[in-house]
Amino acid sequence: MIFLFTDFGAADLYLGQVKAVLHEHAPKAPVIDLLNDVPPFNVKAGAHLLAALARGIPPKGVALAVVDPGVGGPRDAVALLADGRWLVGPDNGLLSVAAARAKQVEVFSIGWKPKSLSASFHGRDLFAPVAAMLAGTGRKTAKLAKKPRLAVAFGADDLAEVIYVDHYGNLITGLRAAGVPRERVLNITGRQIAHARVFSDVPPGQAFWYENSLGLVEIAANSARADQALGFKPGGSLA
Amino acid sequence: MIFLFTDFGAADLYLGQVKAVLHEHAPKAPVIDLLNDVPPFNVKAGAHLLAALARGIPPKGVALAVVDPGVGGPRDAVALLADGRWLVGPDNGLLSVAAARAKQVEVFSIGWKPKSLSASFHGRDLFAPVAAMLAGTGRKTAKLAKKPRLAVAFGADDLAEVIYVDHYGNLITGLRAAGVPRERVLNITGRQIAHARVFSDVPPGQAFWYENSLGLVEIAANSARADQALGFKPGGSLA
Amino acid sequence: MIFLFTDFGAADLYLGQVKAVLHEHAPKAPVIDLLNDVPPFNVKAGAHLLAALARGIPPKGVALAVVDPGVGGPRDAVALLADGRWLVGPDNGLLSVAAARAKQVEVFSIGWKPKSLSASFHGRDLFAPVAAMLAGTGRKTAKLAKKPRLAVAFGADDLAEVIYVDHYGNLITGLRAAGVPRERVLNITGRQIAHARVFSDVPPGQAFWYENSLGLVEIAANSARADQALGFKPGGSLA
Repeated sequence: MIFLFTDFGAADLYLGQVKAVLHEHAPKAPVIDLLNDVPPFNVKAGAHLLAALARGIPPKGVALAVVDPGVGGPRDAVALLADGRWLVGPDNGLLSVAAARAKQVEVFSIGWKPKSLSASFHGRDLFAPVAAMLAGTGRKTAKLAKKPRLAVAFGADDLAEVIYVDHYGNLITGLRAAGVPRERVLNITGRQIAHARVFSDVPPGQAFWYENSLGLVEIAANSARADQALGFKPGGSLA
Repeated sequence: MIFLFTDFGAADLYLGQVKAVLHEHAPKAPVIDLLNDVPPFNVKAGAHLLAALARGIPPKGVALAVVDPGVGGPRDAVALLADGRWLVGPDNGLLSVAAARAKQVEVFSIGWKPKSLSASFHGRDLFAPVAAMLAGTGRKTAKLAKKPRLAVAFGADDLAEVIYVDHYGNLITGLRAAGVPRERVLNITGRQIAHARVFSDVPPGQAFWYENSLGLVEIAANSARADQALGFKPGGSLA
Repeated sequence: MIFLFTDFGAADLYLGQVKAVLHEHAPKAPVIDLLNDVPPFNVKAGAHLLAALARGIPPKGVALAVVDPGVGGPRDAVALLADGRWLVGPDNGLLSVAAARAKQVEVFSIGWKPKSLSASFHGRDLFAPVAAMLAGTGRKTAKLAKKPRLAVAFGADDLAEVIYVDHYGNLITGLRAAGVPRERVLNITGRQIAHARVFSDVPPGQAFWYENSLGLVEIAANSARADQALGFKPGGSLA
């Protein structure tokens, strides 16, 4: 089973090309779009989102994870085995938070090369075939070779930033809610945000924070867009 | 066969989690995205859209229908058998128009509970497993129990409102075209809109209404966006 | 294997209806979304995009290609066999660039008619069943009859225009890069754009052109939106 986590755009012309390659190399593997609108160019936010979403990937599942502004440059291509799940992508930090939080991790460089490699679309030409191999015939075909560690790693710690704004206007942060006391008040865009359990526990329009379904601290508003209610703009800090 | 009808967003990070759960519980059931950008929080518009789209669901098909601003609150979870098709979702009116227009309806409450239920994502944790059960092993596993009726019901009547603006800018209404005489002139944003059979029957840019492919009255323009041509804003009335 | 290339909108309510029909007629054929946000009403841009994307369709694959502002009018419905791949869609020029660039082409009119044909959604009612037939039981069921040529054809030549703006803000042109010398400077929005191999070869924010992963000339910027950096608006010319 292959899970896509990319900034290729759910509506754009890149995903179909990736899926055609996946089907060619692993016709029986189901493919699930986890998220294909990871904020473009934002590898750090992507790394924290991936760490949260990877919890839903079953054992032996393969995540094809690509946010890759350095494509065509010197960054390496890697595959990780993290608590029984494969993560495949560029060695630019994207896989590193999920790796740092796993109990058991093995890191591999990828020896397999495609016959034809475009300069700008390694997601289609390199990472997709390798993800398909790992979902099927395995690591020998992909010519994996053990590596001591990732070249770029952000660590396991939380990130006190908004890492994703969903289409409802909810602000998802890189803070794991299990470590945040419920009485904590969050400061964002000059406003103070208190905890509530769920949307229907506050009046319509009111902003609050809660533990979302990924286990992260999320700032939301009941039946309204929190981003607009709070005047949030990307890059704003959180305290 | 499972059909998704939600406001989770086609491009957002929720659908993939739902599909992973569907695959876990019913790995052989095909999953089709009917619409995942139902206007957020707008249960009534969603109910009329679902009633129109449900005509395309084959017998024994299962619709997983979730527009659920009250998630985590006291609203019930239900499954309907309507003319041989299953509809699964919150008992907040969303399923009620399709139910009221069906010839035969049975209403059930859902007894099955997940081991872990998030406060905000019953689409993933509760409705998806139940939809998968109804597509496969059936109602015993889901622990369905007959209920006399839905708690919230909008009735079978048409809705004289724009219930959806598509990406072409066409305005889909809640009026079934079979009951609207072709000589009827519609009033919207202060403009009078006459009937035409199809786009190519009017000059480029001109607005008209026609019976769309769902059987609903739709206001469109030839090779142009009707919403912009008419200055339409959500909430505007229709007469 | 069926590939969708349409302007139906990746997030809209049309694709699911098409996929339900494809599944009904060819339940075992995998379906891949190549691109469903082709610029609406823009048949010429679509024809050049399709010609570039069709290279990735494997032999015996079927492309269901619909950008069809004349639906319901007198335009014909056709199927092409181009270098072993099927292309199915309206005879309005959309299939014509791919056809003109193929080494071997056969053109067929479609004799099969659905029991019920909506005026505005031949993608669902006519083209989808025929595409499914060509992916499965073949041309007899679809009642194909040889035609001398397409009624509308744009020819095989390149198109010196921006034919698509992707979600990164990259500007994809209808120029095939193999025929453009690397020292060529492109003029767009009054700016002069030089060649670079790939994003990471220029400083952040700088615009350049390169051969993209489809073999087309594309104007991009490193870690920035080229459309915004250049003040690009649809319809602008390229020299």
